[in-house]
Amino acid sequence: MGIKFGIIGHGFMGHEHESMLTQMDGVEVIGICDSNPAQMEDVKEGIIRYGSADELLSNPDIQVVIIAANNNQHLELVTKAAKAGKDIICEKPAAMSVAELDQMVNVVAENNVKFTVHQQRRFDPDFRTVKEVYDRHSLGEIYTVKNQLYGFNGNMHDWHVFVSEGGGMLFDWGVHLIDQLLWMIDAKVTSVFATVKNVINEEVDDFFNIQLLFDNGITAELELGTYYLKDQPKWFERHWFMGGDKGSMYVDGFRPEGKIVRTTGLLTNVSGKRTMTAAGPTRSFGNPREGLIITEELPEVKTCHRDYFEQFIRAYEGKEDFFVKIPEVRRVLSLMEAVRESARTKKSVDFE
Amino acid sequence: MGIKFGIIGHGFMGHEHESMLTQMDGVEVIGICDSNPAQMEDVKEGIIRYGSADELLSNPDIQVVIIAANNNQHLELVTKAAKAGKDIICEKPAAMSVAELDQMVNVVAENNVKFTVHQQRRFDPDFRTVKEVYDRHSLGEIYTVKNQLYGFNGNMHDWHVFVSEGGGMLFDWGVHLIDQLLWMIDAKVTSVFATVKNVINEEVDDFFNIQLLFDNGITAELELGTYYLKDQPKWFERHWFMGGDKGSMYVDGFRPEGKIVRTTGLLTNVSGKRTMTAAGPTRSFGNPREGLIITEELPEVKTCHRDYFEQFIRAYEGKEDFFVKIPEVRRVLSLMEAVRESARTKKSVDFE
Repeated sequence: MGIKFGIIGHGFMGHEHESMLTQMDGVEVIGICDSNPAQMEDVKEGIIRYGSADELLSNPDIQVVIIAANNNQHLELVTKAAKAGKDIICEKPAAMSVAELDQMVNVVAENNVKFTVHQQRRFDPDFRTVKEVYDRHSLGEIYTVKNQLYGFNGNMHDWHVFVSEGGGMLFDWGVHLIDQLLWMIDAKVTSVFATVKNVINEEVDDFFNIQLLFDNGITAELELGTYYLKDQPKWFERHWFMGGDKGSMYVDGFRPEGKIVRTTGLLTNVSGKRTMTAAGPTRSFGNPREGLIITEELPEVKTCHRDYFEQFIRAYEGKEDFFVKIPEVRRVLSLMEAVRESARTKKSVDFE
Repeated sequence: MGIKFGIIGHGFMGHEHESMLTQMDGVEVIGICDSNPAQMEDVKEGIIRYGSADELLSNPDIQVVIIAANNNQHLELVTKAAKAGKDIICEKPAAMSVAELDQMVNVVAENNVKFTVHQQRRFDPDFRTVKEVYDRHSLGEIYTVKNQLYGFNGNMHDWHVFVSEGGGMLFDWGVHLIDQLLWMIDAKVTSVFATVKNVINEEVDDFFNIQLLFDNGITAELELGTYYLKDQPKWFERHWFMGGDKGSMYVDGFRPEGKIVRTTGLLTNVSGKRTMTAAGPTRSFGNPREGLIITEELPEVKTCHRDYFEQFIRAYEGKEDFFVKIPEVRRVLSLMEAVRESARTKKSVDFE
C-alpha cells in the first residue's frame, strides 16, 4: 500500500508524523516506538507498537524510518537505522554538530541507504510568500531581510530545557529560520554576528539575534525571543520584513498577512529651511503626505507541510531528487556553529 | 537681558535656534550669519545680519555662539570662535572625527572658553519615557534594547547628500541614537557590529543597523532606514523596544505611545504531546490564552528641547555642569568610527 514507514519517537513530532502519514496515499505507517510507555498510549489502531528502536528496526517490512527522538539521540538512531538497511528521514536539527552529521553521512553511505532531513518549514506559507516576492525581484535591489519570531512563554518544555538533549531555541527554531534564509538567498554568507541568551531558562537559549552578511549585499537578521512581549494581534507569530530600493514588504503571522509597500515619489533636493511640525523637524520622518505611500497585495502561494511528504514520495520513487539535500543541512549546521562561536566570543565570525 | 548669542549658519537648525532662543527669557540673539544670502532673508527683526562668521565673531557683545553650519565646517568655526573668545555650543555631530574633536578640545582649552554640544534629543519625550522605565528597573534584567527610526523618502536634501560636507544619516541621526543609548546605559560597549548602506543615495548612508554589546549583558540594536516602508500609523517615526526577564516595553512615535507588557504566568513543563492549532504547533508561539498578557501604562515624562537651553543657562551661570560633556561626545564619535570600521571590514570591532 505504498512506502512503509516506521516512526522512532512518539513525542510532539512523532505524533505529527503519525497524523500526517496516516492521512496520505502512497504511504503506510507500520510501526511506532518510544522508550516512554506513556507516550505510546495513543498510537493509532493498526500500527504496531514497539518499546524500542531496535525492535522497530528489526521489522523487515519497514522501508523508511522517521527519526523523531530527542536531538541527542539522532546520531545513534541514524547509525542503527542505516545498519538495519532502512532509508531515513531525520528530524531537524539532523545532528548536534557538523561532526555528528559527517558521521551520519559516512554510515548511510556505507550502508547504501537514503538519507534526508525533515525541514518542512520550507513549505511554510509565510516563508513561501516572502520567497515569491524575492524570486520575482519585485523590490529591486534588496538590502535587508528579517525573519523574526516572538513568543510569550519564556521557558520551554520537555527535553527542550536540557542542553545535553539538544534543547534550546536555536536548535528548535533557529535551524528552520536559518534554513529558510539560506535556501532563499543564493549567495555566500561572509560574516556572522550573533547574540544568544537564556532570558528565562536556566540551561538553554531562548533568545537569539543573528546578523548574516551575504556577498550579494543583503544583511539578514534572524531574531527569536520566547519572552519578547507586545499586546498586538498576531504578535506571537512570525514576522518578515524585506527592504529593497524599489519598495519594502512585510509579512506577519503563520497565515501570512502583509503588503508590498512603495512610494509614489521621493524627496527632491530642498534647501535648509523647512517648516516644523508637532512631531519635530520632518524631512524623511513623521507623517507622509496623503497618497505618497502605496501598497500592493502579496502574491498568494499555496503550500503546506504535506507537500514535504508528497515530494518525498516522488523522490523515493526516483522521479526527483530529495528536496532537502545533505550539503544544505551541513551548511545550516555549520552556520549554527558559527552563531554559537560568535555569541561565545562576542565577535563576528567569517563564514564562507 | 541675559546671555548674548550669535548663531553661525541659518539653515534648518539655525532657524530652530533662532526660533527657540527668541522665545526664551535669560537669552538674547544678537546676530546671525550665513554665507548664503538667500538663507538670511527671513532673519527676525532686531537681529544683526552678518555675511560671514568672521564679522559675527568680531562683535564683542556676543558671549556665546551656536555653530549650526555644515558638519565639515565645525572644526574651523569652533577654532575661530574660541580664538575670538566666544563660548561655544556646537551642533551635532560636533566633529567629523575624534581627531577633529581633539583639536577642538585643545583650542577651546587654550582660549579658555566654554564648549558643549547640542545633543538636544536627550530631551526627546519618547527617549525619556524609555529611560524612565530603564531607570526604574521595571523590566527586571534587560537583555535587549532597540532604538529604530524609519522613513519614506530615501534620499536626503541640501548638503546632507555630500560625504565631504558630513552628510548621511549616521552623522545626522545616528549620533542622536547612539548618544541616547550610551547616556542611558551605564556600561561599557565591548563589541560593535554594523551594516551601513546607501540604498537610494549616491554618496551617503541612508540605512544602518548597529549591534552593540554592553558588558552588563544588554545587546542594543540601532536601526535607521530612510526607505524602509510600511503602511501603518506612526510607522515613519521612532520605535523603541526593551526586553527584560520581568517584561517588555514598546514605545512608538515622537509623541510616545506604548505599553509595558507582562505575562500572568509562564509555561510549566509539559510532555511532548501537544494539541495542534490552525497556526501550527503552539508552545511559545501562536495566540496566548485569554488573560495571559497584561499591560501597564508607560510613565509620563515631561520634557522638551527647550529644557536643553534652560539647563544651558543654569550651567552658563555656574550653577550646574553642562549637560552634554565633551568626554561623552568623544565616546559617541569614537563609537561612530567603530561603526564605520565594522561596516567597511564586515567584522565586529572590539570597543571598550
